[in-house]
Amino acid sequence: MIANDQLAQWDRENFFHPSTHLAQFDRGEAPQRIITGGEGSHIIDRDGNRLLDGFAGLYCVNAGYGRKEITEAIAKQADELAYFHSYAGHGTEASITLSKMVMDRAPEGMARVYFGLGGSDANETNIKLVWYYNNIRGLPEKKKIISRWRGYHGSGLMSGSLTGLELFHKKFDLPLSNIVHTEAPFYYRRPEADMSEADFTAYLIRELEALIEREGPETIAAFIGEPVLGTGGIVPPPEGYWEGVQEVLARHDILMIADEVITGFGRLGSMFGSDHYGIKPDLITIAKGLTSAYAPLSGSIVGQRMWDVLCQGTDEHGVFGHGWTYSAHPIGAAAGVANLKLIDELGLVENATTVGAHLRRAMTEAVGDHVNVGEVRGEGMLCAVELTSDRATRASFDPMGSVAPKVVAAMLKRGVIARAMPQADMLGFAPPLCLTTEEADHIAAVTAESLKEVLG
Amino acid sequence: MIANDQLAQWDRENFFHPSTHLAQFDRGEAPQRIITGGEGSHIIDRDGNRLLDGFAGLYCVNAGYGRKEITEAIAKQADELAYFHSYAGHGTEASITLSKMVMDRAPEGMARVYFGLGGSDANETNIKLVWYYNNIRGLPEKKKIISRWRGYHGSGLMSGSLTGLELFHKKFDLPLSNIVHTEAPFYYRRPEADMSEADFTAYLIRELEALIEREGPETIAAFIGEPVLGTGGIVPPPEGYWEGVQEVLARHDILMIADEVITGFGRLGSMFGSDHYGIKPDLITIAKGLTSAYAPLSGSIVGQRMWDVLCQGTDEHGVFGHGWTYSAHPIGAAAGVANLKLIDELGLVENATTVGAHLRRAMTEAVGDHVNVGEVRGEGMLCAVELTSDRATRASFDPMGSVAPKVVAAMLKRGVIARAMPQADMLGFAPPLCLTTEEADHIAAVTAESLKEVLG
Ligand SMILES: Cc1ncc(COP(=O)(O)O)c(C=O)c1O
Ligand SMILES: Cc1ncc(COP(=O)(O)O)c(C=O)c1O
Repeated sequence: MIANDQLAQWDRENFFHPSTHLAQFDRGEAPQRIITGGEGSHIIDRDGNRLLDGFAGLYCVNAGYGRKEITEAIAKQADELAYFHSYAGHGTEASITLSKMVMDRAPEGMARVYFGLGGSDANETNIKLVWYYNNIRGLPEKKKIISRWRGYHGSGLMSGSLTGLELFHKKFDLPLSNIVHTEAPFYYRRPEADMSEADFTAYLIRELEALIEREGPETIAAFIGEPVLGTGGIVPPPEGYWEGVQEVLARHDILMIADEVITGFGRLGSMFGSDHYGIKPDLITIAKGLTSAYAPLSGSIVGQRMWDVLCQGTDEHGVFGHGWTYSAHPIGAAAGVANLKLIDELGLVENATTVGAHLRRAMTEAVGDHVNVGEVRGEGMLCAVELTSDRATRASFDPMGSVAPKVVAAMLKRGVIARAMPQADMLGFAPPLCLTTEEADHIAAVTAESLKEVLG
Repeated sequence: MIANDQLAQWDRENFFHPSTHLAQFDRGEAPQRIITGGEGSHIIDRDGNRLLDGFAGLYCVNAGYGRKEITEAIAKQADELAYFHSYAGHGTEASITLSKMVMDRAPEGMARVYFGLGGSDANETNIKLVWYYNNIRGLPEKKKIISRWRGYHGSGLMSGSLTGLELFHKKFDLPLSNIVHTEAPFYYRRPEADMSEADFTAYLIRELEALIEREGPETIAAFIGEPVLGTGGIVPPPEGYWEGVQEVLARHDILMIADEVITGFGRLGSMFGSDHYGIKPDLITIAKGLTSAYAPLSGSIVGQRMWDVLCQGTDEHGVFGHGWTYSAHPIGAAAGVANLKLIDELGLVENATTVGAHLRRAMTEAVGDHVNVGEVRGEGMLCAVELTSDRATRASFDPMGSVAPKVVAAMLKRGVIARAMPQADMLGFAPPLCLTTEEADHIAAVTAESLKEVLG
């Protein structure tokens, strides 16, 4: 390791970090942390701190850190062939095997998988596929995409437009045209306190239908949603939501894109969130859990009815003009193959169900009665603690977003990583799927202590 | 290796390949090739064919195949820490070291490097940076980006809009608004046969200025261009081009984005194309040569005047809302560090100059007099052979694009990979920078034989 201070200085002077306060980082005011290793649910930094990673990186290290099965597959692939492209029918044993493994696990009715790099670019691909699809079908006006407020679908210009959070729009002139947003399926923030969950679902569906009518169904190509709202708040859908949404979409010939970047490959305690909630998607976005982040790899799983039209399109217009140099990168593909095998072997999907439920139970016991805890919720290995200045009115703190970061900082001092979710006062947890019940108990205990430190 | 036939079938049934004729591939009519290894300038497929890769993957395997220095760095990083995110000031020794190495090599006046995954997403980042920059400066109307016809800047919705090739627009509803295109600096395709190179440059600059006046300079934020036109034809700029362009941009307060995805890190026989041609960019896009494709990694190098405004922006508005989960991925960063070291150690930048020049000389000798060769051109380790049905009129074959693929197929039979460039009849060469003079001679000889086979 290079002498610590030199590395610290290089960092401040050269490295433009994502999602960072650039000026504060530049001036040395914002924190810096250099990570050197990890094992299971823990990471280690260069100062020797061992931290329990309650967020699995960015909900992505599903298999946990330090898995030799995956790192050895990466080393082996690098040794044999680090790279060749996958354009024009080229492939590698790893990328082809992974395509088969993904399709074996995918929900019914899916036809092919296109590989990209990250979740954002996979959603770019999806929109290109949707537009091409409707052009080939002779519906050139049918192009708008409906997304939800508080959805997160990436940080590019179009994927960031799909995203429904202010931080990713403000000062970037987003959303771009052709993207329209509907209400977030967030029961805790329902418009009227006395709405039942079923009322709220009915309200969401009415709002969706009204939006479609307003815009004109003949202009709407697709709807995109995360099975469980992720960065926008870790919110499972209210009862009957996906049934209702799909009924509306089907009636208006609107494609369903399930963004399973977080939920794919086990996080909900099921292989796909689509199967978990009875969603029948036309496109599925995958990333994160596909490789457990050991190497960048994402994908778009394409349903049969779209695939047929794409094939028709290439018969009519020739080669499909879309590709990334690093599509189906062999290192990512090898990591994916080893990771999906390991998830099966270790039974991590089942562990997400059982230990995830344990985590929410422990969290509810630890903090559920605190006067500033509005709700503890989640699904599978996802948990959120909603903070409020007033449980009765569910009011936000003033200013919103001022409290959760303090709790997260207090937790970090105690060696546990949680995430202060954006545009909210909310603690988010998305640990590796290999979390143990002891680790879950520890996260809950540290949350309680830290909440007490900050809010009394 | 999994039994060959099974792999072949899995491929056809599951894998959505980029830039492929989907229907033909699906029906088993389009070729399929499974790559298993590589060394130096050669790759090996599962059928035991050893091919001289005259295109270095997709102009990206600059250091050549099978470099233990890079693959061992990947293995070591995977073993220590395959992943942690780089949000909010987090980093790893590899990513910080690489940021320092990139900035040490970057042209004067550059301030920071943001890391992404591929060239397309780096250009997405660039546009977000440009828009944010002008919003912070209080110039909300100044947002359009000028690109060039025949430029290639990626395959996403916005990066594909920057791209100026029909294949990437047709049926995808691109370009999106806010992107305008100016003339390609392609002397061979000048509008009038008797234009001198200087006349042609003057014409291009007039056209650029006229476009800016038409759109209104107060609406134009940036200009993006590859120092040497890549996928659009491997075309070095005509004399005085970059000087003239920059003079116009400076006069209208327009940022300069140098897309160095191909030219960065040695391909032109210089570390950066910007230095090669005296370009003073505000943003530089990097990818490919940064890691020699051993792992996905790209970047945006940000100039000081932009960085100052970005910092001001975060002081005014808080955290910069942009990031990819896999930004600065440790595996990519480790590959980058090892690759940039190796490029220095092996003197590959110098080799690009000398062997590149040798390749063009040998190619000119081998095919320059052929009646269907319009021109042999290039720079550094880039070479193009322009095919024409008539040398005098420089006319295209009918239909355009019908001949080059046949020549490329004839070369492949002889064990050499070249690329039929899109929207043209043109052979493209961009071999690894470690190419030997013997290999260069072989490429030229095979080109001549294959040309003879196809065109007589
Ligand atoms: C649901 C969802 N979609 C897309 C993305 C974007 O993925 P990436 O950051 O890899 O571009 C994310 C990232 O958090 C996500 O959670
Ligand atoms: C100049 C240039 N910019 C951007 C890109 C896009 O890079 P990627 O395919 O990694 O997205 C390319 C790819 O060939 C390129 O040549």
